[in-house]
Amino acid sequence: MNIGIVGLGLIGGSLGLDLRALGYQVLGVSRQEQTCQRAIERGVVDDASLNLTLLAAADVVFICTPIAAIAPTVQQLIPHLSPETVLTDVGSVKAAIVNQVAPLWHNFVGGHPMAGTTDSGVDAAVLGLFAENPYVLTPIETTPTPAVKRVEEIVRSLTSRVYFCRPEDHDRAVASISHLPVMVSAGLIDSCMSEPDPTVLELAQQLASSGFRDTSRVGGGNPELGIMMARYNRESILRSLTSYRHSLDQLIELIEQEDWPMLEKKLQETQSQRPQFL
Amino acid sequence: MNIGIVGLGLIGGSLGLDLRALGYQVLGVSRQEQTCQRAIERGVVDDASLNLTLLAAADVVFICTPIAAIAPTVQQLIPHLSPETVLTDVGSVKAAIVNQVAPLWHNFVGGHPMAGTTDSGVDAAVLGLFAENPYVLTPIETTPTPAVKRVEEIVRSLTSRVYFCRPEDHDRAVASISHLPVMVSAGLIDSCMSEPDPTVLELAQQLASSGFRDTSRVGGGNPELGIMMARYNRESILRSLTSYRHSLDQLIELIEQEDWPMLEKKLQETQSQRPQFL
Repeated sequence: MNIGIVGLGLIGGSLGLDLRALGYQVLGVSRQEQTCQRAIERGVVDDASLNLTLLAAADVVFICTPIAAIAPTVQQLIPHLSPETVLTDVGSVKAAIVNQVAPLWHNFVGGHPMAGTTDSGVDAAVLGLFAENPYVLTPIETTPTPAVKRVEEIVRSLTSRVYFCRPEDHDRAVASISHLPVMVSAGLIDSCMSEPDPTVLELAQQLASSGFRDTSRVGGGNPELGIMMARYNRESILRSLTSYRHSLDQLIELIEQEDWPMLEKKLQETQSQRPQFL
Repeated sequence: MNIGIVGLGLIGGSLGLDLRALGYQVLGVSRQEQTCQRAIERGVVDDASLNLTLLAAADVVFICTPIAAIAPTVQQLIPHLSPETVLTDVGSVKAAIVNQVAPLWHNFVGGHPMAGTTDSGVDAAVLGLFAENPYVLTPIETTPTPAVKRVEEIVRSLTSRVYFCRPEDHDRAVASISHLPVMVSAGLIDSCMSEPDPTVLELAQQLASSGFRDTSRVGGGNPELGIMMARYNRESILRSLTSYRHSLDQLIELIEQEDWPMLEKKLQETQSQRPQFL
């Protein structure tokens, strides 16, 4: 089977490495000549081009561009495809993408591999990035079953843990456990920095240790990712933030009212609930 | 020099191990006979007793009990001490303790070693727990300089990073970088669990990964510690929570208003500010 990949960054490049190792023929397209050359050198693809026509020979195409470029890429790609070609994407939000792309191409299956590293670009690509990690597929009612089966088969060969759900359910779930933590964590850094007394601020910076380090990690990450999730998953993240503010207000109220038994109960609950997510 | 330790748990026990290794004579007091025996067996102390009279021979006494027991312990200890004996504590809040203990004993220096593990009890005690970690001392205007020097000398011998500040400044600083993260993180778990749709909740639990794991870590920790910090550092933690809520509301507003340039600026700031705390 021929597999096409548009966008040869960390995700697209790592897909290429894995799929070639599994025996697929991999064809890559990038906007940069240098990336094409590097992808061939590193064995990420069998062939690469700046031109989408290369993908006329592909049976399945993974769109691995930034979210904003997914639908425009599909539009440019369509003239080169045979009607049987299956398209899938790797965007970290799903409803916005599926709503745009499904009307353009019948054989489209939304996807989201939940794996990554802090690095980016074709040189960051690694073998086995998706192994044991979740890979969500979000077919809708009109998605042809053979298209879903074909993408599922490829994703299972990566030894990912495959989940199926509605695009909207994906977006709500990742809003709470992936996008909300970014905002919660960024708020912590912003709040600590807003200390008006310079002596206290300096002391806080000197005394911060593992509790601050872990809770602030994702809030100190790549701003572009934060913007992208807020922009393309706006409704769900606002829903999660509203729920979070309610939880926070309850904690504040318990401390204000010095209701230590209820605060203890709440903290016992969070202690016992956390392992259900890990 | 003879050093007394009241409370032979993780902190008191680890102090004993380090101080004996440095050549001090260490005398320990615990409420439990079994802990006394174990402390002697493990070499945490040279001698141990259930009775505070053992500490009549101590030049410096570290009070390593839970916060609520610190002032009562000092009151019970006073009849056995010579006036020159220096007392210090290891409580994680300072103003509440210093305000209670300083009027009882002139030679008292508040202290807070910022080190620990997830374990507790005398069997959790380890050599070198305090090395390279912050150790805050909070003398006040009336604290005699020789008492401060004596505690400082011992703490420096542990190769801790020693900081001096007012008890109130300590409490504000740790409220923001140590106590606030616990509430912020507990709120995240509580909010994720309050998802009303069982399909979405189950999916969230399956998809949660490193972002959720790190941001929720301290909110899923020991509830007793959370209660203690809220109870004894109530004013400062409420101050930090109010500031945090303001930061969170600003982020929510930017997302509501779709003000992506300002949200990006904010996330760029938090990205560049975080390393100032690490």
